[in-house]
Amino acid sequence: MAESILLPDLATQIIIPICAVVGIAFSLFQWMLVSKVQLSTDKSTSAADGKNGFTEALIEEEDGLTDQSVVSKCAEIQSAISEGATSFLFTMYQYVGVFMVAFAILIFLFLGSVEGFSTKEQHCTYDSSKLCKPALATAIFSTISFILGAVTSVISGFLGMKIATYANARTTLEARKGVGKAFIVAFRSGAVMGFLLAANGLLVLYITINIFKLYYGDDWEGLFEAITGYGLGGSSMALFGRVGGGIYTKAADAGADLVGKVERNIPEDDPRNPAVIADNVGDNVGDIAGMGSDLFGSYAEASCAALVVASISSFGINHDFTAMLYPLLVSSVGIIVCLLTTLFATDFFEVKNVKEIEPALKNQLIISTVLMTVGLAIVSWIALPSSFTIFNFGVQKNVKNWQLFLCVAVGLWAGLIIGFVTEYYTSNAYSPVQDVADSCRTGAATNVIFGLALGYKSVIIPIFAIAISIFVSFSFAAMYGVAVAALGMLSTIATGLAIDAYGPISDNAGGIAEMAGMSHTIRERTDALDAAGNTTAAIGKGFAIGSAALVSLALFGAFVSRAAISTVDVLTPKVFIGLIVGAMLPYWFSAMTMKSVGSAALKMVEEVRRQFNTIPGLMEGTAKPDYATCVKISTDASIKEMIPPGALVMLTPLIVGIFFGVETLSGVLAGSLVSGVQIAISASNTGGAWDNAKKYIEAGASEHARTLGPKGSDAHKAAVIGDTVGDPLKDTSGPSLNILIKLMAVESLVFAPFFATHGGLLFKIF
Amino acid sequence: MAESILLPDLATQIIIPICAVVGIAFSLFQWMLVSKVQLSTDKSTSAADGKNGFTEALIEEEDGLTDQSVVSKCAEIQSAISEGATSFLFTMYQYVGVFMVAFAILIFLFLGSVEGFSTKEQHCTYDSSKLCKPALATAIFSTISFILGAVTSVISGFLGMKIATYANARTTLEARKGVGKAFIVAFRSGAVMGFLLAANGLLVLYITINIFKLYYGDDWEGLFEAITGYGLGGSSMALFGRVGGGIYTKAADAGADLVGKVERNIPEDDPRNPAVIADNVGDNVGDIAGMGSDLFGSYAEASCAALVVASISSFGINHDFTAMLYPLLVSSVGIIVCLLTTLFATDFFEVKNVKEIEPALKNQLIISTVLMTVGLAIVSWIALPSSFTIFNFGVQKNVKNWQLFLCVAVGLWAGLIIGFVTEYYTSNAYSPVQDVADSCRTGAATNVIFGLALGYKSVIIPIFAIAISIFVSFSFAAMYGVAVAALGMLSTIATGLAIDAYGPISDNAGGIAEMAGMSHTIRERTDALDAAGNTTAAIGKGFAIGSAALVSLALFGAFVSRAAISTVDVLTPKVFIGLIVGAMLPYWFSAMTMKSVGSAALKMVEEVRRQFNTIPGLMEGTAKPDYATCVKISTDASIKEMIPPGALVMLTPLIVGIFFGVETLSGVLAGSLVSGVQIAISASNTGGAWDNAKKYIEAGASEHARTLGPKGSDAHKAAVIGDTVGDPLKDTSGPSLNILIKLMAVESLVFAPFFATHGGLLFKIF
Repeated sequence: MAESILLPDLATQIIIPICAVVGIAFSLFQWMLVSKVQLSTDKSTSAADGKNGFTEALIEEEDGLTDQSVVSKCAEIQSAISEGATSFLFTMYQYVGVFMVAFAILIFLFLGSVEGFSTKEQHCTYDSSKLCKPALATAIFSTISFILGAVTSVISGFLGMKIATYANARTTLEARKGVGKAFIVAFRSGAVMGFLLAANGLLVLYITINIFKLYYGDDWEGLFEAITGYGLGGSSMALFGRVGGGIYTKAADAGADLVGKVERNIPEDDPRNPAVIADNVGDNVGDIAGMGSDLFGSYAEASCAALVVASISSFGINHDFTAMLYPLLVSSVGIIVCLLTTLFATDFFEVKNVKEIEPALKNQLIISTVLMTVGLAIVSWIALPSSFTIFNFGVQKNVKNWQLFLCVAVGLWAGLIIGFVTEYYTSNAYSPVQDVADSCRTGAATNVIFGLALGYKSVIIPIFAIAISIFVSFSFAAMYGVAVAALGMLSTIATGLAIDAYGPISDNAGGIAEMAGMSHTIRERTDALDAAGNTTAAIGKGFAIGSAALVSLALFGAFVSRAAISTVDVLTPKVFIGLIVGAMLPYWFSAMTMKSVGSAALKMVEEVRRQFNTIPGLMEGTAKPDYATCVKISTDASIKEMIPPGALVMLTPLIVGIFFGVETLSGVLAGSLVSGVQIAISASNTGGAWDNAKKYIEAGASEHARTLGPKGSDAHKAAVIGDTVGDPLKDTSGPSLNILIKLMAVESLVFAPFFATHGGLLFKIF
Repeated sequence: MAESILLPDLATQIIIPICAVVGIAFSLFQWMLVSKVQLSTDKSTSAADGKNGFTEALIEEEDGLTDQSVVSKCAEIQSAISEGATSFLFTMYQYVGVFMVAFAILIFLFLGSVEGFSTKEQHCTYDSSKLCKPALATAIFSTISFILGAVTSVISGFLGMKIATYANARTTLEARKGVGKAFIVAFRSGAVMGFLLAANGLLVLYITINIFKLYYGDDWEGLFEAITGYGLGGSSMALFGRVGGGIYTKAADAGADLVGKVERNIPEDDPRNPAVIADNVGDNVGDIAGMGSDLFGSYAEASCAALVVASISSFGINHDFTAMLYPLLVSSVGIIVCLLTTLFATDFFEVKNVKEIEPALKNQLIISTVLMTVGLAIVSWIALPSSFTIFNFGVQKNVKNWQLFLCVAVGLWAGLIIGFVTEYYTSNAYSPVQDVADSCRTGAATNVIFGLALGYKSVIIPIFAIAISIFVSFSFAAMYGVAVAALGMLSTIATGLAIDAYGPISDNAGGIAEMAGMSHTIRERTDALDAAGNTTAAIGKGFAIGSAALVSLALFGAFVSRAAISTVDVLTPKVFIGLIVGAMLPYWFSAMTMKSVGSAALKMVEEVRRQFNTIPGLMEGTAKPDYATCVKISTDASIKEMIPPGALVMLTPLIVGIFFGVETLSGVLAGSLVSGVQIAISASNTGGAWDNAKKYIEAGASEHARTLGPKGSDAHKAAVIGDTVGDPLKDTSGPSLNILIKLMAVESLVFAPFFATHGGLLFKIF
């Protein structure tokens, strides 16, 4: 049975941390390159020349602006944005910190109570002939890994934000040298974040496993059950990051637009608008910090789900350490593959004009997927026995190594397909967005209808892609297959995050250009970067959702196994009511978050109006607006408003599990998964499409687009309304939904021993 | 075991047809009362006096219009609307007829092939010790009942439309005497339709069962399996009615509004608008004929689902004819209860002013529910043995008669709760719609966001109500319980349809008043009727959706039993992919129907524009527009556009069943059910709320409303955009979705024997 594995355990123990360290080193190297763009003019550095150097000679003259004043203005704006973002995140972390402590105590108490806080060893859950560590140990270690996951998530989000606010003004300045130069800065900065997060997540997980192993020894079941807390911690922070950040960014955005653009008729990102700094802060806390936490959570959860199943499969039973760490090896290879892929964008090829931006980003997806497929084949060949068994709801299922390779590969390629479909539906280079833009001819109503229909339609192919991955991976290797399929989709996370973070950085760069009063040419360049960014942001969200669907299913499967129920039969009343109520939760949650954005935006609108009305000389540009108050309003409102939706997600599994029991909870998880994934995809694509339809009209790059424009035409006004409607959909409610489905699943898994022992009170009473 | 039932079989055989005939007679009596409003002035009738008579003395003078010219104008407009509606329905029936014939052949071939067209008797499916009629007989009788169901559905829709177009102008004319008089005409006309449909459906089903019984004798299993074709026929016609009618009505509406109201700045329903007749036709073919077919379909399917399960329960085994016909007895009692309820609106009380309209309609719901609860208790006591068994996925489950009473009652009361919640979220008397109206202050975008959030939020309580009904009825009496819970919700269908049909009739009445150039006072009265109508339409849709959810589940359960699978385990790959793809189908379908409305509206816009541009004197009112061309465009476009969404719904179960088999099909049914019901509720409530938010601003009845208005203000313009977005949601995609979930379930049930024998080709090959 225990066939030899080509890769010795020692090699595994060395390869994983090395890959993580390489990733971190590469990230720092990229940061160094970005930092060569000077934000101060007093010391003139002779930057490296050559293809990727920063030759000052390329800088075009800015009309009526000295170079020095532009640079110092940019630096000033950048520091305002960075300060605003830092202050928001710190305020949020304070509140969330309280929650985390309370929840950590809850985890300890609930899990400890399973065996009445006994310190005695107990029979293992899956193999009752053996003795496992006491439930109290699981409670302690779960709590620790929960905190670790939360802290890692916080660090991921915070670092991402820091990098983005470091890069935005530098991108603006590079835009003076040409669109290609600006692209490279923005993309490199995205890569800094991508690699740092991927490597950091891997390294922390690796170290945690090895430390926990000192206590657990060969009790793999207990070890990896405790490790699931890591995923829960990561995702709960991600929830607050996404929701809070999402409300922040859209309240500021809507507030700035509704008063500035609509009422006062001043351009977007005009420095006279008091909410403009808050708006730019929002991009960094929502899209960057939120997305970073989100994908980190997915990664942590997918790894945990795979590890839990592995521990009770032949890997765990035979103590095949290398095979058990296969999920981490996949991620390690992913870092190396993404490193090579990045070079294609920054070194092997060069973006010379606007038209090359989108293909360059798309090639990143293709290259990383192709290379990763090779990488996967190798790692599956050397790290797995040719045949092994996987735990499948009570029975052991025989699996071959090539089958497991197919499981990971199908997830990887499904991610690529989701990426392409998302691009097709959200990029204004294709007919769907152009049709939406065209519908603006007959007004805002048709624009909204066509946009909603586009979003609904864009769900079809991704769902088939997800369904096929699930079918293949589930059939070959049960829940382990689904978990590694999710890891396959996330294996290129570094590249995914890089192109995703690129979007908000470009958006900010455009804002800074406007605020610093730079010329129209610069703004056009940053707009082009930004339009591509909207598409990549949608692609990033597509990945996040697709992987969340797979991760949730894997966690769900692990939960069902752990809760010791062997089937989840839709045709039992307990399960069915769970299913239909679960399918309702994403609507409830969306209603909450959308309303929250609305209320927060209303407060912002009032403040911006007040400033315009009371500060003399503001419209004329002779007086400065009070940016700080707007930043504070966004901060306070978003923190207040994130509590109810957060509570809905965190409390539902607890309430259902305690009062209705594990069967109903299974139904809730399945229902929210299959329903939430649809709303999440459609919301983020609809929003992306509206945004790019507006940009399509504004850019006027084709004959058709020019008939709809220019800025200020009726069609353009209709497009602006669509864009505003789409904002909370694509940046708040949509992307928060993947956290909803993941988080409820991982929370159920962590509390499974408690629910299985003490749950279902209501049915026990009646 | 076979305990005596109080009601003898002979009494059952008499009571059911008598109740049906009473319902039809009552309906004709109401029609007679409505017809007393004269549409011609040449013969002056001395109509009855008294409270409900039509005393001409009440008619107020119309400024500058002779009575005669008003009446003849109304008559003229009415006949144009009626002709347009008839022509559309006939054109649609021609196309759908072809489809029906083709599908009937398919049913015969597929079901006949199950036993290779053998004419020999076969072992029964559930009790293989007995011999049942050959599969060929089931094929023939299923085909016949399919055609019968389709024809009954057509008749229901057609009659509803005829009544509505007969009543609209009469309501307008009565509005001259006061709002109370107009209300009674509109409500009576709705009652004509409600009773005719409910009684007709019951009678046809009753006769069919008795005729089929001549062949089947005591083979209840075969008899009721063949009867399921009736539900399939009813629902397939309903699909085309809803989708085709929905596209028609919204294309005409949007076309009329976008050019007339927005571009040309003429009032709604202005006779100069070429699309105005098509718009009014639309209300009758979409809301009336479509809704009639839809609820008839639900009723037929719920009865079939209950009968199928009853046939294999102790009722069938012991040949308890009365108990077996319990579903029909419930409907019979319902007719009598609704008859009494109607008198409360028309005879016992009187609506005297605008404020009393909504309470009067709401009281209808309450009264019918309370009376029906008593009726149910009686019928459950006399028609059921005190204890019996119900088939529950392979085992017989013991049920008491009071438990079955609770099953029906819980459905009935869940319907009332859904009705109230819908009213709360869509009536402008409450804060949710007022908040949406208020959000128009900051423009169309916030209006759309708040409206979408309102729709999402309005899903919560109805889903809990549905979940509780399912839990109670499922726990007590398995799928039979769920089926009778659906019948409980539908038992007051006559009242439900009456208040539902009241809406479009009032809408039309307002249109006719405007077109006939009647005074502002009349228009205000019809507007008040119409605003209440928007709410009742939403309530009707709420009932339709709630019952559809229960019906689908019951059909789904019957399908699973018939397909001989004992569990539908979410945690098998075959089922899970079905679940996630099924949850996607409502989005696909909505995208199709919304796009269809968009394309059809675009064609209408072009035609209306063309007429305004090319017909001299049209704007000045000196030339008449070409109404007929607009009617034709709507007809052609809607028939062309209804095919793709229709095909999606009809083909999905066939493709999935044949290629993937019954497990995946089960997943698809469960997924589309739990996902579709949410979108359907949220879409119809969002649309209703937007419509009433607009009406709230227009009516300006409160201090708050006046700060937003008047017509033409920025806030009002924003509200009009919301209303236009909501139109396809509430009248096309939303209400079509309940047919999607029901139809796929009943189709699966009808083809279950075929799928169980020949299905799952793809998995058989690999």
